[in-house]
Amino acid sequence: MSTGSTSDAGSPGGTGASTAQEVPASTRGPVLVVGTGLLGTSLALALANAGVEVQLSDTSPTSLALARDMGAGRPRAEGDPEPQIVVVATPPDVAAQVVVRELAAHPGAVVTDVASVKERVAAQVRAAAGPGAGRYVGSHPMAGRERSGAAAADSDLFAGRPWVIVGQGADPHAELVVRNLAVDVGATPVRMGAAEHDAAVAAVSHMPQLVASLVAARLESLGESALALSGQGLRDVTRIAASDARLWSAIIVGNAPAVVDLLRRLSDDLAGLLAGIESAVDPGEPGLTGEPGGPGQAPLIAPGAVGAITDVMVRGNAGRARIPGKHGGAPRRYAEIQVLVPDSAGQLGRLFSDIGEAGVNIEDFSLEHSAGQSAGIAQVCVLPAAAQRLEEELDARGWRVVRA
Amino acid sequence: MSTGSTSDAGSPGGTGASTAQEVPASTRGPVLVVGTGLLGTSLALALANAGVEVQLSDTSPTSLALARDMGAGRPRAEGDPEPQIVVVATPPDVAAQVVVRELAAHPGAVVTDVASVKERVAAQVRAAAGPGAGRYVGSHPMAGRERSGAAAADSDLFAGRPWVIVGQGADPHAELVVRNLAVDVGATPVRMGAAEHDAAVAAVSHMPQLVASLVAARLESLGESALALSGQGLRDVTRIAASDARLWSAIIVGNAPAVVDLLRRLSDDLAGLLAGIESAVDPGEPGLTGEPGGPGQAPLIAPGAVGAITDVMVRGNAGRARIPGKHGGAPRRYAEIQVLVPDSAGQLGRLFSDIGEAGVNIEDFSLEHSAGQSAGIAQVCVLPAAAQRLEEELDARGWRVVRA
Repeated sequence: MSTGSTSDAGSPGGTGASTAQEVPASTRGPVLVVGTGLLGTSLALALANAGVEVQLSDTSPTSLALARDMGAGRPRAEGDPEPQIVVVATPPDVAAQVVVRELAAHPGAVVTDVASVKERVAAQVRAAAGPGAGRYVGSHPMAGRERSGAAAADSDLFAGRPWVIVGQGADPHAELVVRNLAVDVGATPVRMGAAEHDAAVAAVSHMPQLVASLVAARLESLGESALALSGQGLRDVTRIAASDARLWSAIIVGNAPAVVDLLRRLSDDLAGLLAGIESAVDPGEPGLTGEPGGPGQAPLIAPGAVGAITDVMVRGNAGRARIPGKHGGAPRRYAEIQVLVPDSAGQLGRLFSDIGEAGVNIEDFSLEHSAGQSAGIAQVCVLPAAAQRLEEELDARGWRVVRA
Repeated sequence: MSTGSTSDAGSPGGTGASTAQEVPASTRGPVLVVGTGLLGTSLALALANAGVEVQLSDTSPTSLALARDMGAGRPRAEGDPEPQIVVVATPPDVAAQVVVRELAAHPGAVVTDVASVKERVAAQVRAAAGPGAGRYVGSHPMAGRERSGAAAADSDLFAGRPWVIVGQGADPHAELVVRNLAVDVGATPVRMGAAEHDAAVAAVSHMPQLVASLVAARLESLGESALALSGQGLRDVTRIAASDARLWSAIIVGNAPAVVDLLRRLSDDLAGLLAGIESAVDPGEPGLTGEPGGPGQAPLIAPGAVGAITDVMVRGNAGRARIPGKHGGAPRRYAEIQVLVPDSAGQLGRLFSDIGEAGVNIEDFSLEHSAGQSAGIAQVCVLPAAAQRLEEELDARGWRVVRA
């Protein structure tokens, strides 16, 4: 659970993080949050921490009580003051319906939703809400977790994340109100058209989710001995395959046109790759003599296979390199230092304390390990200028260091 | 570069890691390593560190000199003593050819290779090597990096990793020699048939590699604004898409039958998923009224779509859950604690030092961040019994903690 405490000078969050607690909120309350799942409760917590009055609503009394007990606000009741903003944080398949209802129920309020698909919701709202539709602003904070529900909520969930705002058809005032809301919880507002948003998330989120699940689904019937050979690559590719099936069904269905478009292209690429590799399947007995390469030579392989695989790999290299790094924009190049970390209490602490004493900031960090391994390899990314000094410092303190 | 130093009591590697430096090598040298790339040089370093005499060979004088200068051994020369073991660490497409040559050149030696495909190599060796084939033992250490070449070598590369040994057709003595070699560099020998191995790595390594590349290839032409919405999920799914195209072309071609089999199944799953989602693409104008759900209701969605997506997601959940965790076997359940870490020097150090002082061992750790984010979310996995205490300790020290 989030502690929900406001920050003070001694808090570790006070030195670098830009979160709602450190800036006076420009959002005027009350804010009504409809739907106290992960996103709704996280937003309510962040707003409540910033001193905004938050009203809560949910069809589940249990979820509502949990959010209240976490300090996210209090359930909206008869006679409460009218909300200035309503945030619809329901599952995406009912978002439009709830937005239309809230526009009618609160004729003075700006209404937004946080559904991960925007075009279908916007079209349904436009078709049903009449003149009130100008008070609706679609939005999508790019934040989430593999877990769902109020129990997983985090007032810092939106800190530093992009928050897409779809202004099409909205009053400029309404759009400004939602921008302020995003900024107040530490997010970075990004203006986009609904179709542009839906195509973007299909590529960076929905299609990768489905593909991770497809890969993981192939492991369902795999033998134990094969699974024991799993390494970090497989773990990374399939991490998000642990995500919630019900939520994702609603998301994908809501963005079906864009997802179908991408899956068709992926399917075409896969068909080309498959045809290429099929040409390398040797129908006869493999051998070193009598092959086209000549006696004693390695057999020549069908050029179609190498071409097809290389094409996909090289395009994958290029696409991967385009993903923005930690600080946005083009990926910064960090020097990576690998350190062997024994699997016993305090060793990682000792490592980080040694790095801290060297005055070097860690730009990225991961811990790699494999089945049955007793020690982990820590991958420490630092600015190139600091790498050699850090390496020497760690060497001097007895760490096993490798730098490539 | 590895420091290459032997361990001492003060070394952090001395408490938990089982590596070559701590156990007297049972491998009798000299060992000839043919191919001074990542795997060959790493193996040579580990053996040299353990006091085994290592001879090196490579078609590239530059690579050979680099491996020598790193302390991996010395180039084999005229008049050198005969090797007891030859390790062929060439690219996989020439491995069989080199194995056959080395079996003939060193009639007293056990010859192994480290290629990531085994059936084709073994069949080619059997077909070409005659009676000497009994001295050949195929093997595959499950270790690697996204980088290649001697410069990326690491004497700890094999520590704790599975090392597959394919004993088919080999003399029992030869198999034992290769087992000892694996154990001497800290790996865990795993006996498997060649076909079983190839099917296993197709599923846990080759297919995931190609799929990661296919996903990343879809980003090649994506707009900047869409890429700016990338999150940790996409980064994880595509991390290994940065891998070397030439090496992977040789690996995939060498394991074409098993990879084709898996890609066909994946393609079938994808076709079913695509057909399902296509049924959710609404041909008309979306709206809340006049839909099958009735006026004012959310539109009913094609049941085929939800069924298809749910099927893939649920099977993905099940497959993902089967990947062995850090300590092998069935995944242990860890409690995950999330902590906000400001992006300034020493903060991660302070966090780990605080965790270390609490006496809690970190079972797994990752740092999550997004474009433009100034602070990171550290995900600390610990044994469930220790979670609450750690949470309280961190709370008390002013960290912003979330536990789901």
